[in-house]
Amino acid sequence: MGTNAPLYAQVEQSLVARLGVSLHPGDRLPTEDELIDEFGVSRITVRRAVQNLVARNLVVTRRGQGSFVAVPSFTQSLTALTGFVEDMDAHGLPSRARVLRVEEIAAPPDVRAALDLPLGARVTRIQRVRLAVGHPVSFDDTYLPTDLGRLVAQDDLENEQIFTLLESRHGTPLTEASYAMRASTADAVLADALEVAEGSAIFRIERTSYTSGLRPVDYEVLHYRGDAITFTTRLPRARTPGQEQ
Amino acid sequence: MGTNAPLYAQVEQSLVARLGVSLHPGDRLPTEDELIDEFGVSRITVRRAVQNLVARNLVVTRRGQGSFVAVPSFTQSLTALTGFVEDMDAHGLPSRARVLRVEEIAAPPDVRAALDLPLGARVTRIQRVRLAVGHPVSFDDTYLPTDLGRLVAQDDLENEQIFTLLESRHGTPLTEASYAMRASTADAVLADALEVAEGSAIFRIERTSYTSGLRPVDYEVLHYRGDAITFTTRLPRARTPGQEQ
Repeated sequence: MGTNAPLYAQVEQSLVARLGVSLHPGDRLPTEDELIDEFGVSRITVRRAVQNLVARNLVVTRRGQGSFVAVPSFTQSLTALTGFVEDMDAHGLPSRARVLRVEEIAAPPDVRAALDLPLGARVTRIQRVRLAVGHPVSFDDTYLPTDLGRLVAQDDLENEQIFTLLESRHGTPLTEASYAMRASTADAVLADALEVAEGSAIFRIERTSYTSGLRPVDYEVLHYRGDAITFTTRLPRARTPGQEQ
Repeated sequence: MGTNAPLYAQVEQSLVARLGVSLHPGDRLPTEDELIDEFGVSRITVRRAVQNLVARNLVVTRRGQGSFVAVPSFTQSLTALTGFVEDMDAHGLPSRARVLRVEEIAAPPDVRAALDLPLGARVTRIQRVRLAVGHPVSFDDTYLPTDLGRLVAQDDLENEQIFTLLESRHGTPLTEASYAMRASTADAVLADALEVAEGSAIFRIERTSYTSGLRPVDYEVLHYRGDAITFTTRLPRARTPGQEQ
């Protein structure tokens, strides 16, 4: 953000940059007086910056107690295939990945079915925790056919997006994806990775992404923290047989 | 089903009619020999009937142990606004409702927001458990503006669908709906109604249905058993700024 941005926007941006770095969910924000001193701006500017953070669901204000960093929570419209970083960018939130594991394994039956692979096929599995403003919100297992997986495995998966890598570096444009969505609960592994209690709600998505010719090239099992995500959609009324029109 | 239907289909239909009545999830189906005796048909006919029930996810076969009534589990495509009974009909499954409560209350804030009602407005709340093959799969809170709610409250809600009542009896065609979907867990009330353990996974949907002129007329909070439902959709790839085409 250039220094031509309004003062409140500069303060806002400066605070967002600290989220997940020196300010974590539940932490108290500096007081208005502290922010006035630090940035050398007016109270009205500080208030506007904080109000914007509240409107972005990044900060919650508790009456008489001050402002606190919120647990990230997003509403995501089911309108197009997008990756996690793209989604967070759209929300104006810094995001990154923690790579837990990159390995080649015999494809389990659900992976074989999704990627249309023969018995005995091997796949590259990439296990990551996705963070928004420094806070874990999703635990992802990504399965790629080894021809693509071996290429992607050599990329910088902490800082680059698999969709971007497939499309821009490895000649594999994505055209569409199928989603299967379920409610589930966190086992010990998920609870540990997502920093929630065992048994917490998990929004589980199996997503198969396709390239040209409807060839499946990327199968993911995404486990979102239940308290972090709401998916929205809008559907037309089905015309039922009994209805006129 | 007429008596012109193939024998296996008659046996199949006869068994489906017992589901949720004399045969409940987990119950063992009669053996092949028992079914042969009862229906006076061949083994091949009995097998075909049972195989069809397995294909419909109504029955599971355990090697060496026989066939058992399955816990109902559905895959529901997010393509059009449909009611529970319509969905179950599409799966060929008998469904019904158990009405827990019909009352008029002051509209809570989320209900007012969804139905676009002023402060102090009252609404009709209808609380139902939805059963598929006799098994509870969803706990629904339906909120209607009182002009419609008072009419619907006098209808037979155990046997009639609210969508059908609104559209066919009360002159309120539905045109579309907005959905907000979250993963959650069962509290004591939900656990009791859905016959699951407290803390079990719940797929929670807030759905607002609209009539002509985009006027909201029906706000529901649906709580599906997490083990009963998978929602599917298919999305095209978003065109990102960096992409050619």
